[in-house]
Amino acid sequence: MRTVTFGAASSLDGFIARPDHSVDWLRWSQDVSAITNAFWKTIDTVVMGRKTYEVARRSGGGGYPGVKNYVFSRTLKQSDNPKIEIIADDAAAFVAALKQTNGKGICVMGGGELASDLFNAGLIDEVGLNVHPVVLGSGIPMFPGVRKQIDLVLIESRQLEGGCVYVLYRVKGAEEPAATPERRARGKNIAERNT
Amino acid sequence: MRTVTFGAASSLDGFIARPDHSVDWLRWSQDVSAITNAFWKTIDTVVMGRKTYEVARRSGGGGYPGVKNYVFSRTLKQSDNPKIEIIADDAAAFVAALKQTNGKGICVMGGGELASDLFNAGLIDEVGLNVHPVVLGSGIPMFPGVRKQIDLVLIESRQLEGGCVYVLYRVKGAEEPAATPERRARGKNIAERNT
Repeated sequence: MRTVTFGAASSLDGFIARPDHSVDWLRWSQDVSAITNAFWKTIDTVVMGRKTYEVARRSGGGGYPGVKNYVFSRTLKQSDNPKIEIIADDAAAFVAALKQTNGKGICVMGGGELASDLFNAGLIDEVGLNVHPVVLGSGIPMFPGVRKQIDLVLIESRQLEGGCVYVLYRVKGAEEPAATPERRARGKNIAERNT
Repeated sequence: MRTVTFGAASSLDGFIARPDHSVDWLRWSQDVSAITNAFWKTIDTVVMGRKTYEVARRSGGGGYPGVKNYVFSRTLKQSDNPKIEIIADDAAAFVAALKQTNGKGICVMGGGELASDLFNAGLIDEVGLNVHPVVLGSGIPMFPGVRKQIDLVLIESRQLEGGCVYVLYRVKGAEEPAATPERRARGKNIAERNT
């Protein structure tokens, strides 16, 4: 079974963007780069909602390189970008089927509604957050529609440059992922930096 | 100037209680006990809002021992409990004046509206959170009415028993507190447990 990871950067008060979707408060660092690179090697698929896709597209992106990108939307037309596939089906049913196929991990990008739908369907296995040292006061919440309590198991926490705190959790009851070389490297990367 | 600390336990999605104010998801541990004991020695005053006071009173408490307790309320009558003083004045003005008097640190208990008012008035110097490994989905938010961005400086983060993560921040621009023996002991306690 493929591991589904929800990853995000958040403010201390649990927002992933300002009310106008801007993320000018995010801090990039070598630590973030190392975590992202190690994580990226464990996945081959990115899933995102329409809003996340449109924010990324406006800033010149819209499809991540080297992975399969699925965007859930009932209104968007099929993209002429071969990296992007628009999925009009129910996101939870699609991701449930995708988890059963062969492949590496699946990353849930952005957050908000898609992440909540997948949490509610019990499809998210891991949550990785980069908690930033700021209270925004208002914005786009990380999990706006989670309907039931989700118990987590802390895998690691550590301080990053710039006062950020990285926390990685497994959802309680989620299947333990296979120890692929990439996942071991991700752990090794973590262990080395902790010493 | 006395240091004002907002301290709380929160879920990963930023709630301090369920919608019905229950906190059955909180985990107590020897780590939490050590942090609380060391912190308690640095303060002599607790301020809280009416709702926090009433929740505490229903569960048999209502005034913390060994400290001066102020409860902000325009409707409550003066308590016959000598440990409690009901303050009908504006909370921000009262705490601003209190900070100028002699004494140890001041703890903002509970959260929600009082904490937001004090943040908005620039009166909170430190934020200590015990982030629990759970997504509640709904509840009482930690900072429901903060109107401006508050930049923080991470002082420490560390993993506690049971998968909790303790984070302590200073509000950017807040005055550095005097290094009293109690504050040094709090730091020493932290340092010892990290080694």
